[in-house]
Amino acid sequence: MATNKKTVRVAVDAMGGDHAPGEVVAASVEAARQWGIQISLVGDSNAVKSELGKYDIEGLGIISVPSEGSILEGEQPAQMLRQKPRASILVATGLVKAGEVDAVVTMGSTGAAMAAAAVLLGVIEGIDRPALGGPIVGFAPHTAIIDLGANVDCRPAQLLSFAVIGDVFARQFWGIERPRIATLSVGSEAGKGNRLVKEASELIIKSGLNFIGNVEANDLTENKADVAVCDGFVGNIVMKLTEGLAGSAENYLRERLQGKLPSDEVEAIAREMYELGNVGEFYGGGPLLGVNGVSVVGHGRAKVDAIRRAIGMAKQTVEIGLVSNLNEELARAREAVGENL
Amino acid sequence: MATNKKTVRVAVDAMGGDHAPGEVVAASVEAARQWGIQISLVGDSNAVKSELGKYDIEGLGIISVPSEGSILEGEQPAQMLRQKPRASILVATGLVKAGEVDAVVTMGSTGAAMAAAAVLLGVIEGIDRPALGGPIVGFAPHTAIIDLGANVDCRPAQLLSFAVIGDVFARQFWGIERPRIATLSVGSEAGKGNRLVKEASELIIKSGLNFIGNVEANDLTENKADVAVCDGFVGNIVMKLTEGLAGSAENYLRERLQGKLPSDEVEAIAREMYELGNVGEFYGGGPLLGVNGVSVVGHGRAKVDAIRRAIGMAKQTVEIGLVSNLNEELARAREAVGENL
Repeated sequence: MATNKKTVRVAVDAMGGDHAPGEVVAASVEAARQWGIQISLVGDSNAVKSELGKYDIEGLGIISVPSEGSILEGEQPAQMLRQKPRASILVATGLVKAGEVDAVVTMGSTGAAMAAAAVLLGVIEGIDRPALGGPIVGFAPHTAIIDLGANVDCRPAQLLSFAVIGDVFARQFWGIERPRIATLSVGSEAGKGNRLVKEASELIIKSGLNFIGNVEANDLTENKADVAVCDGFVGNIVMKLTEGLAGSAENYLRERLQGKLPSDEVEAIAREMYELGNVGEFYGGGPLLGVNGVSVVGHGRAKVDAIRRAIGMAKQTVEIGLVSNLNEELARAREAVGENL
Repeated sequence: MATNKKTVRVAVDAMGGDHAPGEVVAASVEAARQWGIQISLVGDSNAVKSELGKYDIEGLGIISVPSEGSILEGEQPAQMLRQKPRASILVATGLVKAGEVDAVVTMGSTGAAMAAAAVLLGVIEGIDRPALGGPIVGFAPHTAIIDLGANVDCRPAQLLSFAVIGDVFARQFWGIERPRIATLSVGSEAGKGNRLVKEASELIIKSGLNFIGNVEANDLTENKADVAVCDGFVGNIVMKLTEGLAGSAENYLRERLQGKLPSDEVEAIAREMYELGNVGEFYGGGPLLGVNGVSVVGHGRAKVDAIRRAIGMAKQTVEIGLVSNLNEELARAREAVGENL
């Protein structure tokens, strides 16, 4: 595993997320203290400086970089890139492009982060569009699901690229030597599934990856694969259903156990059930996969702890050399499969 | 609601399911006693008669109908129809076709039941292939999801037919006057989703149904729609993920609560969590939707209680006149939408 122990420099979108800039600035200060990360806080100068004034940041290597406005969840990212060229996510991603920082972190609009990364950093050869992926189900925290919603109506070759991405992800983040790669489908036997899964399977078989065939959705809770690839439509359904069921189970247990156990214990159990379905929140954020640069996107609801972990995830992604590894492995897969990718 | 209080006659596949014929015969005797249903037990005569000998069935209207062999889960249904023309599911479905019974019930292979129904009973005009649907998530037991896996790679018009089927289902089984019909998608705003959802939405809008647009997967736990339509690939993922998460949560709670509460209470809570994700098991079985006749398919694992409920579901499906209602509503939708269906 290639590591790089230079000081990591991260641009943090100070205007992104529900709790910006206050919690974002607080998390940045903590991350700088904890890991010695150099942080460029990109946002409205007055707002950022006013928040920074609350902390003793002497010697921490935190600077403020001005931007104008931000792109909100729900705004059309492509349009916004033109209308708000100085928006915080664009300025922050631009710092990566310029080589002034090693990574960008945002709790703002995922669509805006993806558009900024695709336009400014570009995607790795063999990738149509960045993907989102990672562990979703807390019962199997080392099963990465890719894609989680960035790419719908996928071609088979895209599922192959998710398989390659997942292989690198599982090896680099989890140290799994030869990750078990599966297609998420509606039957475990070969040949079960829709057209996309069947055609993608043929490509993945040729890729030289450790392809174990289909897993079904119930297998996602049982560590039957290290990586499960699927169209982003399906992955997003998996992610949101898991979140929804965990939230409902949390409420159910809180009510069901009330008066039967001490209230702090009830709360702890209910909360655990929630967290088992909201693994992404624990990690704080995940890297956009397939981008030629490191861009980590977290949850809009994230507060200081989760934001700090997202910044830590950016540091780790830089240090393990995810981007150059993805470049190499995608090139290798292209060669193995032929012109299909 | 058109009801029909004549004695309902049901053919039960005595050879289908993990616990056939013992539990199937036991459930049939109970259903005959409880509801006055006339039951034709279709299976190996010796096996059926030996099981029937355990009960006093005098005056219950239970008869034995011989068949030869059965089609197992995993066997190619179409091929089996040719190779085993006297298999229990074929003989039982044939009794419906011949008008000798009003419905067939099986705990055997879903694929075989569907193939038998499609070939012998036929599908309603406007339906390509029977669909599976019903409530999945115990937190929202009156949200029906259609299709659950019978149809993958759907065309937009198929999603419209699922919407019509779901509308009839929710009105007839649940008495909901004007069911809220939604497309299951990856964003709640109109226009979010894959090509299939976008094109299907345009058709459903024209249909005159009470279409409320998209719901996301987390909405499936919160009663935001009475019917959510999706491609069977997606629906099957939803069903199996819900089952898998509930099973994992059951085990987690059993361990987590051990020693903190009396063991019968731990068991009850763990079991409830399981059942919240396995609603279908509670209902016992659901009718194949879109078939020109009543064919109810239950879970292979079903035991006597669940099988009895599946037989009850067949009775209810006959009495509410589901098939003729589906015929009418699909004709109405075809007219509303034009040639698209």
